[in-house]
Amino acid sequence: MSFATRREAAARAIAVRLDAALPSGDMPVHAAMRHAVSGGKRLRGFLVIEGAALFELAPERAATAAAAIEALHAYSLVHDDLPCMDDDDLRRGQPTVHVRWDEATAVLAGDALQSLAFELLADPSCHPDPGVRADLTLRLARAAGAQGMVLGQALDIAAETAETPLDLDGIAALQAGKTGALIAWSGAAGALLASADPAPLELYARRLGLAFQIADDLMDAQGDEARAGKRLRKDAAAGKATFVSLLGAEGARARADALVTEAQAALDGYGARAGTLRDLAAYVVRRDA
Amino acid sequence: MSFATRREAAARAIAVRLDAALPSGDMPVHAAMRHAVSGGKRLRGFLVIEGAALFELAPERAATAAAAIEALHAYSLVHDDLPCMDDDDLRRGQPTVHVRWDEATAVLAGDALQSLAFELLADPSCHPDPGVRADLTLRLARAAGAQGMVLGQALDIAAETAETPLDLDGIAALQAGKTGALIAWSGAAGALLASADPAPLELYARRLGLAFQIADDLMDAQGDEARAGKRLRKDAAAGKATFVSLLGAEGARARADALVTEAQAALDGYGARAGTLRDLAAYVVRRDA
Repeated sequence: MSFATRREAAARAIAVRLDAALPSGDMPVHAAMRHAVSGGKRLRGFLVIEGAALFELAPERAATAAAAIEALHAYSLVHDDLPCMDDDDLRRGQPTVHVRWDEATAVLAGDALQSLAFELLADPSCHPDPGVRADLTLRLARAAGAQGMVLGQALDIAAETAETPLDLDGIAALQAGKTGALIAWSGAAGALLASADPAPLELYARRLGLAFQIADDLMDAQGDEARAGKRLRKDAAAGKATFVSLLGAEGARARADALVTEAQAALDGYGARAGTLRDLAAYVVRRDA
Repeated sequence: MSFATRREAAARAIAVRLDAALPSGDMPVHAAMRHAVSGGKRLRGFLVIEGAALFELAPERAATAAAAIEALHAYSLVHDDLPCMDDDDLRRGQPTVHVRWDEATAVLAGDALQSLAFELLADPSCHPDPGVRADLTLRLARAAGAQGMVLGQALDIAAETAETPLDLDGIAALQAGKTGALIAWSGAAGALLASADPAPLELYARRLGLAFQIADDLMDAQGDEARAGKRLRKDAAAGKATFVSLLGAEGARARADALVTEAQAALDGYGARAGTLRDLAAYVVRRDA
């Protein structure tokens, strides 16, 4: 199967699982939850499914964990877009939740999507062994919480009002929380579903996550808004330090390429089976959306 | 031990567990999380600990689950107080999080407190059997999410702009989500920690939760703001239907008393061991704060 075919198959498996899990109610909050999880690249869910595939697990056996991380990611975007946070009106080419509905609905939809992520991980359909389910839950709670993603968000907010812009280490720490923690979880999850050592996949995912973020900074600086489906040039407008502002576009591109090589090296132990994950690492820095 | 002594012992065990679990970082979001979980009646955590005590489990063995529900409850209060929700400036006698810090910090602190609740439930310190941890997690995720607490919040918001005020069934449905779901979980949790049937304690807690809510409506209509530590008369000012507006103060009081009797009857199978839980049911409708 080609890389594109595998991505489509994974996206389909995730969509089916999310569809079954999302509330069917007709309140605005229910519609907003469905809106928030629709579209998107499904990078995190694809990582879970392809990580599990290394250990011969079919996509369906990783789909619940993949749906969980996509629900959690969607929650973080809905809250991140709020007026009191990044104040974004466009996401995945659609109006953001608080624009389409209102702020209260966006707060509630995000809150319920976070609950849904843990509901999925704790559900027997995620894995027959409750020990695996509890471990995935514990690791995701830590990755999402005040020492993980929320810490990254808080560092991002603090950087906006700080007197001196962040340096490279500061930005790396911010991104390790803001996007790195969930991506690292997604890498580890595939191995955990197979009761295998998660360390190599987690290392791969950390490198890939940072490369992905640098590519995001490059897109913010140079990309096309219509293709990206979200507002760009926000970092420069806000005077925020980014990998691009600190390294220059060429330096940032070189750093991203080096990270891709490191990510791929972390897969050496898996041999030819890891071809799709190697392709994915190369893909995340070439994408233009 | 007297009722008051048992409440204090439970509150102490919960405070110790929360203290160990809360992030020690010095970012505003970390301070806001600690602020949000401080104070409060610890009704939900006390239910967990006293439910477990029916099966001879010491407070320490239920303290992690009790801390989890208090973290989740605190998250719900922080988000409920936001300007786009209830817009409250006072909670537990203190400025609310978005007043003391800002809205972004309140959104993030609430988000991280929800993650913390699931981190605590999935942690081995909650229970040695991962099957029990996964079950507690699954049930709390459902109770908190779009068919539970968030649904109750959404119904509350919808009622504010509806043309006709809610009737008694509508208010009961709203409260079953908004406060009932977490209180029912708290009742069931004690039994689940002991691998016992959760049904009687869950029924007890549902009745107690509704009695508690009616008492809250009575306090909102008749209570003293300084003692309550929060703003009162908000329901009447907003023209919201409540148990008091629909049944009158006397009718609401009678309904609450009937619910207390039903709650106590659900404990019949536990005999004298359930004395504290019987006292608790009577207590929640007599409190003035």
